[in-house]
Amino acid sequence: MAEPIEFYFDFSSPYSYLASELIDDLAAKYGRKVKWRPMLLGVVFQKTGQPLLVNVPLKGEYSLRDFSRSARYFNVPFKFPAKFPMSTVSAARAYYWLHGQDCQKARQFAHAAFRAYWVDGRDISDLAVVQEIAAGIGIDGTALAAGIATPEIKERLKVETDTALAKGMCGAPYFVVDNEPFWGADRLPQIEKWLQTGGF
Amino acid sequence: MAEPIEFYFDFSSPYSYLASELIDDLAAKYGRKVKWRPMLLGVVFQKTGQPLLVNVPLKGEYSLRDFSRSARYFNVPFKFPAKFPMSTVSAARAYYWLHGQDCQKARQFAHAAFRAYWVDGRDISDLAVVQEIAAGIGIDGTALAAGIATPEIKERLKVETDTALAKGMCGAPYFVVDNEPFWGADRLPQIEKWLQTGGF
Repeated sequence: MAEPIEFYFDFSSPYSYLASELIDDLAAKYGRKVKWRPMLLGVVFQKTGQPLLVNVPLKGEYSLRDFSRSARYFNVPFKFPAKFPMSTVSAARAYYWLHGQDCQKARQFAHAAFRAYWVDGRDISDLAVVQEIAAGIGIDGTALAAGIATPEIKERLKVETDTALAKGMCGAPYFVVDNEPFWGADRLPQIEKWLQTGGF
Repeated sequence: MAEPIEFYFDFSSPYSYLASELIDDLAAKYGRKVKWRPMLLGVVFQKTGQPLLVNVPLKGEYSLRDFSRSARYFNVPFKFPAKFPMSTVSAARAYYWLHGQDCQKARQFAHAAFRAYWVDGRDISDLAVVQEIAAGIGIDGTALAAGIATPEIKERLKVETDTALAKGMCGAPYFVVDNEPFWGADRLPQIEKWLQTGGF
């Protein structure tokens, strides 16, 4: 079986959320799995020296319009949250803690965390909220809080973030398909053509 | 008949070139015309405070790969030129000078100028090259040189650039369809859906 698609994202990235609702089905159409890899996008901003898109003159105003319109285009529920940007350290660590035990649960959690923020506007920087989201899929919140405080999990998130950078991640979402990098939810059609044709 | 699509671009923008090869056919499918409006993208860079994409760490390397891959995706001939960025003042003025006389010729010239730079790597900042491109579609180079030196034509390019900014242009290409702005060649599918559905 062909290699899985790597999907690097930050829970605070709107285009990552949109892609998260689409990438598994797209990959499955071509017999591929997807490796979900949350990371901390702030590190990319530091490296590129780029500000948050919504803070850039002209681009900020446009992007707010584009987020919502892209969501409608992709037919994905979306509401720009009151609090933005959002610290996603706890959510990302929770993902890796769950992933060490049950990767299906981790995937479920990732969807739930994305939707909690990008549909329901919840403050996922708050550990209590992350615990509630986890509880919704049958995960014990106390065990989660203990799990994400371990050095192993902290290190895991750091390593995944460094790995994303080493693979050239310049924005989110960032996909690697057979060593070919794709940046942006708007590159999903190119990813599909790549999967269809084996590269073009 | 519905309003034409406004297409703002700079001849030095690779994604504008890609869009230039596609937008007329897309518009025609839905009974629309396209108003081509070259402008000077440097003014947008000043306003947004953004550097050239190719000079941004990580994004620069990615973008060079993405330009070529996007061209292959759209099936448009493309070769990244040796000289980049490129001053496009003469080419843009030549477009408006021609447009005042014969808008079909102006469109032909725009295609020829884009291809001269993005396929053949010619230095379109050089007036002699612009004259040669114009000669290729039957335009007298001496008349062109005189035409683009007039205050009216200089003012026209300034006004069009200011208009693009006033319409929120935050990057190139930038389209306005029934007052809805779209930035990027990668928004062509959204433009198509907009034309199909009358807005979504």
